[in-house]
Amino acid sequence: MPDVLKPGATIGILGGGQLARMLALAAAPLGLKCHVYAPDKDSCAFDVVGAHTLAAYDDENALARFANAVDVVTYEFENVPAKTAAYLTAHTKVLPDPHVLETTQDRLIEKNFLAGLKIATAPYAPVHSATQLADGLAKVGVPAVLKTTRLGYDGKGQAKIERAADANEAWRSIRNVPCIIEGFIKFQREVSVIAARGTDGTVECFEVTENEHRDHILYISKVPAKVTPALATEARRVATRILNAFDYVGVMGVEMFVVRKGREQHVLVNELAPRVHNSGHWTIDGATVSQFEQHIRAVAGWPLAKPKRLGAKIEMINLIGDEILDHTHWLTAPNTALHIYGKGKPSARRKMGHVTRVWPGE
Amino acid sequence: MPDVLKPGATIGILGGGQLARMLALAAAPLGLKCHVYAPDKDSCAFDVVGAHTLAAYDDENALARFANAVDVVTYEFENVPAKTAAYLTAHTKVLPDPHVLETTQDRLIEKNFLAGLKIATAPYAPVHSATQLADGLAKVGVPAVLKTTRLGYDGKGQAKIERAADANEAWRSIRNVPCIIEGFIKFQREVSVIAARGTDGTVECFEVTENEHRDHILYISKVPAKVTPALATEARRVATRILNAFDYVGVMGVEMFVVRKGREQHVLVNELAPRVHNSGHWTIDGATVSQFEQHIRAVAGWPLAKPKRLGAKIEMINLIGDEILDHTHWLTAPNTALHIYGKGKPSARRKMGHVTRVWPGE
Repeated sequence: MPDVLKPGATIGILGGGQLARMLALAAAPLGLKCHVYAPDKDSCAFDVVGAHTLAAYDDENALARFANAVDVVTYEFENVPAKTAAYLTAHTKVLPDPHVLETTQDRLIEKNFLAGLKIATAPYAPVHSATQLADGLAKVGVPAVLKTTRLGYDGKGQAKIERAADANEAWRSIRNVPCIIEGFIKFQREVSVIAARGTDGTVECFEVTENEHRDHILYISKVPAKVTPALATEARRVATRILNAFDYVGVMGVEMFVVRKGREQHVLVNELAPRVHNSGHWTIDGATVSQFEQHIRAVAGWPLAKPKRLGAKIEMINLIGDEILDHTHWLTAPNTALHIYGKGKPSARRKMGHVTRVWPGE
Repeated sequence: MPDVLKPGATIGILGGGQLARMLALAAAPLGLKCHVYAPDKDSCAFDVVGAHTLAAYDDENALARFANAVDVVTYEFENVPAKTAAYLTAHTKVLPDPHVLETTQDRLIEKNFLAGLKIATAPYAPVHSATQLADGLAKVGVPAVLKTTRLGYDGKGQAKIERAADANEAWRSIRNVPCIIEGFIKFQREVSVIAARGTDGTVECFEVTENEHRDHILYISKVPAKVTPALATEARRVATRILNAFDYVGVMGVEMFVVRKGREQHVLVNELAPRVHNSGHWTIDGATVSQFEQHIRAVAGWPLAKPKRLGAKIEMINLIGDEILDHTHWLTAPNTALHIYGKGKPSARRKMGHVTRVWPGE
């Protein structure tokens, strides 16, 4: 297949949730078609594409037909099964290259990868037993957070340890799976850098975004973030080094803590999301190019755009669970773009939509 | 059917071109599905919706199934056949109400309608014969433009008459169909007002847009238009009166000429387009709400948004025919959004895409 897609080509997307949906909505204006592959018949991304495959991720016949029908495959979620990725890679081009997933699907491997790049993170130690947990706690101190190395998101698979005496209970609650213990960070703010890297190695970072979580789920993202210009430069430089180290193609969300060291602010990298990221949703309505379009440009082999913020200030608010039922409120809020994901009935903690509030500049 | 759609409802769109495509792309973030009905298998709007009907506009079985499958019907083009509109109106809600089409599908009826509202237009007269043409020319003067009353667009079905002696040749070129003769206007600029009207009667106008044509096809639209604040107010007031007179629901494009009368500028209304309009495409990337979203909000019975421009200046450039082949040029132009309509091979005078250039404010 060619390295540079022509308009009219088809991008395959693994996963049928809101990220796939917003990727497809960004591909359309570029004249690129999308084919969504997902195992759930209610996948909300099916509604915005002309072609979809409803099949399990381990259905090799369906995967083969999918690979044949598209010009390149990308994915909306980081937990693509390794076998699925391997099968597709053997039959078509997959971007970002799934070797990235081997690192980002495992918190311990990810932390070691960052350590290898001399990028600061919270202190951490591997935990495969109650004994190792005690040793790890001695190294990272309390409070600390015990996390499964794999398959955790939005606070799932985590246990906070306030005192060393709580360690055994935390270990039991995690149920004896491989873990990592991380020192609890007293951060000033949580920020993220949404970075895109093209096939030519160009990296374009969106401006540093400030994030607030509620109950372990992203609630609000804001730009401009309240950070110094020096911190913003450092954050974007760190993200750029990570994408370059992976020889990455596409968009990655790099979550960071801002911590104070003496008089200076520095970043610690918390987590890598090898995909478009919730904290980049503001770019749809608040920037000259969105994270979704940048990702599509990258996997299409097209040049990235240089993003520029539209407006003095932007705020993205997630609509979680029943909050989506109040959508009419947002329809009349000034300079507010509503995004309903079309996921059907809301359930608690489920991301159902978001709004972006733009304060237009003069 | 309910007057106010709920998220998850389906909007039927008659027509499968780029306007239908951009309507569907605007409906998706609002959680509304679209079902596109078009007779051409290569309809570019099919690529961005989960449901479409490929059938002729006079296929009543297909129309019946379509009407059943959707909650409301709208259209992307003003030449919806009267029988199609009547059939659908009998089976479901159609917005804007097709009675508007009876006026806007006929240049003479449209001009008489405007005259009834005391809204200024070019001088005009009906022409059904060579004799009437001579009488009409005596009334409107030369130069003048002879236009078929129905089915003309982008300069088709028009003949310019420079001198009274050219009248017979013009009449022959038009081939004996009902016509209107219009006095040729020495305008300062061409502008348009894209206006939306909700089911509650609220009207929201986008700011006056300045348009440049090339070979009778819209080439560039710009905001802000170079007009006085008084002219802008007059233009928006005229558009508002027109939509109110129709009890209109949806977006209408009102094309106007700016003419000088002594020291003052005034508008003459040139043409009404009862649909989203090419000169409003800049609103996708250049405003807090697009004309497409406003139209969807209106036909869904939802409140309109108050549009605000994003950026100091916006320019929309149509990509016509082979110009689409140079799409990579626009991918690297600063602050430029590319829109490729996915229409397949370009042909001369065919609108294949557009770009929007935004000059972000500080």
